[in-house]
Amino acid sequence: MEITRHHIQEAHKRVKPFIHHTPVLTSSTINRLAGAEVFFKCENFQKIGAFKIRGAMNAVLSLPKEKQQQGIATHSSGNHAQAIACVAREVGTKAYIVMPSTSPPVKVEAVRGYGAEIFFCEPNQQARERTLQEVVDRTGAEFIHPYNDYAVITGQATCAKELVEEISSLDAIIAPVGGGGLISGTSLSAHYFSPAAEVYAGEPEGAADAVLSIKSGKIETAPYVKTIADGLLTTLGDKTFPIICRFVKDIFTVSDEEIIEAMRLVFERMKIVVEPSGVVPLAALLKNREQFAGKRVGIIFSGGNVELKRLGEWF
Amino acid sequence: MEITRHHIQEAHKRVKPFIHHTPVLTSSTINRLAGAEVFFKCENFQKIGAFKIRGAMNAVLSLPKEKQQQGIATHSSGNHAQAIACVAREVGTKAYIVMPSTSPPVKVEAVRGYGAEIFFCEPNQQARERTLQEVVDRTGAEFIHPYNDYAVITGQATCAKELVEEISSLDAIIAPVGGGGLISGTSLSAHYFSPAAEVYAGEPEGAADAVLSIKSGKIETAPYVKTIADGLLTTLGDKTFPIICRFVKDIFTVSDEEIIEAMRLVFERMKIVVEPSGVVPLAALLKNREQFAGKRVGIIFSGGNVELKRLGEWF
Repeated sequence: MEITRHHIQEAHKRVKPFIHHTPVLTSSTINRLAGAEVFFKCENFQKIGAFKIRGAMNAVLSLPKEKQQQGIATHSSGNHAQAIACVAREVGTKAYIVMPSTSPPVKVEAVRGYGAEIFFCEPNQQARERTLQEVVDRTGAEFIHPYNDYAVITGQATCAKELVEEISSLDAIIAPVGGGGLISGTSLSAHYFSPAAEVYAGEPEGAADAVLSIKSGKIETAPYVKTIADGLLTTLGDKTFPIICRFVKDIFTVSDEEIIEAMRLVFERMKIVVEPSGVVPLAALLKNREQFAGKRVGIIFSGGNVELKRLGEWF
Repeated sequence: MEITRHHIQEAHKRVKPFIHHTPVLTSSTINRLAGAEVFFKCENFQKIGAFKIRGAMNAVLSLPKEKQQQGIATHSSGNHAQAIACVAREVGTKAYIVMPSTSPPVKVEAVRGYGAEIFFCEPNQQARERTLQEVVDRTGAEFIHPYNDYAVITGQATCAKELVEEISSLDAIIAPVGGGGLISGTSLSAHYFSPAAEVYAGEPEGAADAVLSIKSGKIETAPYVKTIADGLLTTLGDKTFPIICRFVKDIFTVSDEEIIEAMRLVFERMKIVVEPSGVVPLAALLKNREQFAGKRVGIIFSGGNVELKRLGEWF
């Protein structure tokens, strides 16, 4: 399947009534430090605190009504779980969320707060998938994948669409890459709605599967996984990978120290809360500033769901 | 002297070109928790990260041009020092700042970053005043008091003026009280521009001089001083106290635990950075929610200058 301009436009109409139109902020200090004109699309202010609601909402609203009513299901301990739970409440159906038994209580409570039913499993991929399959078999709920799903990708594309509609003549857009839902949607929206803007991805060194996959031409896993950017641990999917190969110009990796430096800058200068995964694109910009000198750069702050008790470790 | 409606209007015209018109934000979660409709005037997004620029700017712009050119001086280790340094740079004059030798390096650097000249002194009131007097004698600079100054109070009043012009029919406004510059300006703006809104102050239990002063009818010092709200340690002045007595309806005290709870809420739900002194009014609202049930309440988030390395102690 090819996601067209029309698909993204229709998705935007579909999700608009249910999501926030998030603001685009600027900071003269960061412009000075980066030597570029930087525009931050603030999905940390989005419902559930992250862009994930866009893809989940589009996927669920695209289901036939009868299917919607049988409920929706996913496995996730992060922002996608909250997104699915929130969407289910908004459209009036049931959400079934499979979470590892090791999930932080604050995340479990957030999901439960939306009225979702939670199923705990052992913290490994096999157990997650088996438990999810059992839930789906028993309930008839529709599984919504966190990123490897065309309707999810199309929903995530609405974020960059809003950005380029508000800020004209961007030379570049940088978004984080985990499983690739946001970056592939971002690259599609740039391609259709702002073709002069080149799209780049930011990736943690401690989860560097995407940069490896682009090099080898097939989906790879990361050589090692250790980063504070806990939203970017997943590997690419067979639907996101080809879009990234075609439309993403380059992938920059950044260390956890660079991620923390970027977070410090955002907290101190912009006075807003962005999660480690969310500042990866800014860290990538600051690390590669010669390449973007004098340019107009859009940055997607993908989320703001920080575990506050970890701030003491970072700052 | 009586500060009139006209004074505040003129001050607003004077400072407007030099300050940010800060946004008023809302949070459905906090509305639900407070049982009220709450409007947050976000001075954490103001230049220098706090409302203090308003008063400093108005005071300096109100000086005769020749006086301005001799420079301006103050003693402060906090937001007022940055405000004076920033104003001096904007109007093209010199700033002389007396700071205790124990000031955190990050604050010293911020003041120096604006090009101010810094004079260190022993960390006590006597040394501050003596050093300041020496600087003023030597340079001919004008001393701008952080709060006990009519031009400063009038400048701070522009913050609540903007709030009530944007949000109609407020039933109440809550601002923090330290030396009383912001709260007295707030109460004057409410009186002139939104007379149905009653004005309340929030004060830390560990710097409870204002609540005591109101009770006794004269300026008192706090019984003990120990709070994380480091912007609110000062006592009232002979210019702020009478305005507070006349126009402020009540003063609520809050504990450091209540301040931290309010900060947590703002970081987690609003995804913005507010300093301990800045969330005192929200902590006061949440502690006294029966009194404000169903009302439209304006809250002044006075600043966002948090020392990030202290977040680990609080969360």
